[in-house]
Amino acid sequence: MDVDARAEAWAALQLVPGLTTRALVALLRAFGGPVEVRAASRASLTHFVPGELADAIRGGPDAALLERTLNWLAAPGHWLVAWDDTDYPAPLLTLADPPPGFCYIGRRELLNRPALAIVGSRNATAQGTAHAEAFAAALSAAGLTIVSGLALGIDAAAHRGGLSGAASSIAVVGTGLDRVYPPANRDLAKRLAEHGGLLSEFALGTPPLPGNFPRRNRLISGLSRGVLVVEATLNSGSLITARLAAEQGREVFAIPGSIDSPFSKGSHRLIRDGAKLVETAADVLEELELTLPAEPKVTARDPDPPPDGVPGRVLAALGYDPAGIDILTERTGLSTQAVAAALVELEVSGRVAALPGGSYQRLR
Amino acid sequence: MDVDARAEAWAALQLVPGLTTRALVALLRAFGGPVEVRAASRASLTHFVPGELADAIRGGPDAALLERTLNWLAAPGHWLVAWDDTDYPAPLLTLADPPPGFCYIGRRELLNRPALAIVGSRNATAQGTAHAEAFAAALSAAGLTIVSGLALGIDAAAHRGGLSGAASSIAVVGTGLDRVYPPANRDLAKRLAEHGGLLSEFALGTPPLPGNFPRRNRLISGLSRGVLVVEATLNSGSLITARLAAEQGREVFAIPGSIDSPFSKGSHRLIRDGAKLVETAADVLEELELTLPAEPKVTARDPDPPPDGVPGRVLAALGYDPAGIDILTERTGLSTQAVAAALVELEVSGRVAALPGGSYQRLR
Repeated sequence: MDVDARAEAWAALQLVPGLTTRALVALLRAFGGPVEVRAASRASLTHFVPGELADAIRGGPDAALLERTLNWLAAPGHWLVAWDDTDYPAPLLTLADPPPGFCYIGRRELLNRPALAIVGSRNATAQGTAHAEAFAAALSAAGLTIVSGLALGIDAAAHRGGLSGAASSIAVVGTGLDRVYPPANRDLAKRLAEHGGLLSEFALGTPPLPGNFPRRNRLISGLSRGVLVVEATLNSGSLITARLAAEQGREVFAIPGSIDSPFSKGSHRLIRDGAKLVETAADVLEELELTLPAEPKVTARDPDPPPDGVPGRVLAALGYDPAGIDILTERTGLSTQAVAAALVELEVSGRVAALPGGSYQRLR
Repeated sequence: MDVDARAEAWAALQLVPGLTTRALVALLRAFGGPVEVRAASRASLTHFVPGELADAIRGGPDAALLERTLNWLAAPGHWLVAWDDTDYPAPLLTLADPPPGFCYIGRRELLNRPALAIVGSRNATAQGTAHAEAFAAALSAAGLTIVSGLALGIDAAAHRGGLSGAASSIAVVGTGLDRVYPPANRDLAKRLAEHGGLLSEFALGTPPLPGNFPRRNRLISGLSRGVLVVEATLNSGSLITARLAAEQGREVFAIPGSIDSPFSKGSHRLIRDGAKLVETAADVLEELELTLPAEPKVTARDPDPPPDGVPGRVLAALGYDPAGIDILTERTGLSTQAVAAALVELEVSGRVAALPGGSYQRLR
């Protein structure tokens, strides 16, 4: 096992039951470092924390859990990054409550790159995930590391895009790093571990607890220069992340959408409250006073010309909001059969997506 | 001909070649009124305008054109509204260059109601026209008279919605009021003449000249408390109207849409520049500090209750678009004789008008 005494002390302190970030920070300030905190006498600890907590610190964490953590840290590409490490992300130090340390898997050099958070709903529309992936790909190619959670929908799409660019992508998760939640993102987590990063301030073994996700959100925004909300319902956690970002002095960006889509209502509320409306990755870069590299990838959405004939008419009638076959029949004056056949053709060519409930959404 | 001397003087001055609004205003201020301007000596006129213009004023307009204008004004529901009329729209007086007078067809009492302009692209999407019509219907029902141009697309949809509500709709056109441009909106213009209003500051006979439309736009915004842009491309004239509105101190509202739709790019630019993003008619009313009435307040359109019995059924079946006896027979299930008798009764009471070709049009 090649974990040094300092890393072991950090890991041990992270696992002490009941030791909050605030109390740990007070102790680190008082004693100078994690090794010194662990070596402190009960009497001196109780100047800063209650007696029971002093006992818990001196007793140390559960031995099996510490062993497991040290084993995990011994594996290649696994790290405990503490605030006195040179790789500790500088932007986190501007927060009111930066984590004293966090577990990390992946490329450490990504931790201090300029970063942009991309967040949104789990049940995003096909257009929403396409936008998240396209913006992330363009911004990562332009040198911004993408930061998001590890949820389905927008989060996963943002990482797929981020991984495709040079600046890659980091997932900040709400569980211990020895777990992947949700399990459906196992392959994505593996790719992030190899080519990007996975970050958690929670101890190994921490299950997905609802209370931990809002806390996690402050790191998503805290690591980033700004937060881009792609699609969000009015009760989406993304709005919490956006609010935290504003409080942390980060930029907030939002992609607008149809006023008929519940997945755009959150973005629209943010824009009304002062978020920047963005239509392209270049808009984000401009606002952050960065520039796209010579060959921008983001607007290359539609290299092939629009279809002719009946499919072309149906696509034009569909516009950019979801619509059902009945509406399209009415708008085009075509028969139901003709519209249905055109929709199949458009779906096969990747122009439209069928939505639950029988309506169709234009993709490009 | 029952056009009085004052109206005749206004009409004559409006037709003098080369007499700009600015010069006319200076003369009206100097001499007190249109009759006095026409009676002024060449010497006194030349204190304010060049000699050639003084000659043109004293020479008067082309006699045939004046005759045609006076004939037009003598028709019921045709007006020349001048800035010393009590019905002259008060909001226009706040403009830098209010028209001294304008031609008007329709309900004069609409000219001083609270109004909202709804504008957008001619080639709008199906959703765009649906949004324009729905917002206009709700806002007209809430007491805001809708103001727009007379173009296809968003303009026409806004008027259809506005006409359905109590506060109705006014088209501000860029041609003389004896022309309808584009011809496809002939039926809409007829309905506006009967149930709403049509307004032009241009002399009768003025053809659709490109240069007149931007000038016309300042009246669309000028008449209104705010301008709602529904769908607009980046080169849409609607953006000019919105800019004029902001310069005139009017509110600017915009409906967002998909970032992939060229018809939302204009709206998005406006939102970035400070326009209010709106998702519902209630958003517009809230921003204007108005509220949606529980029951629409404005009932001026139909003071007497709708007829009962067979005439009531026929009127309901007629709706607000022209229909022939055959269609009404089919819609009501009544005999041809019963429908014909009801139509005579409705025509006598001023509810419907017989149109050339045997169809009927609801008037109120």
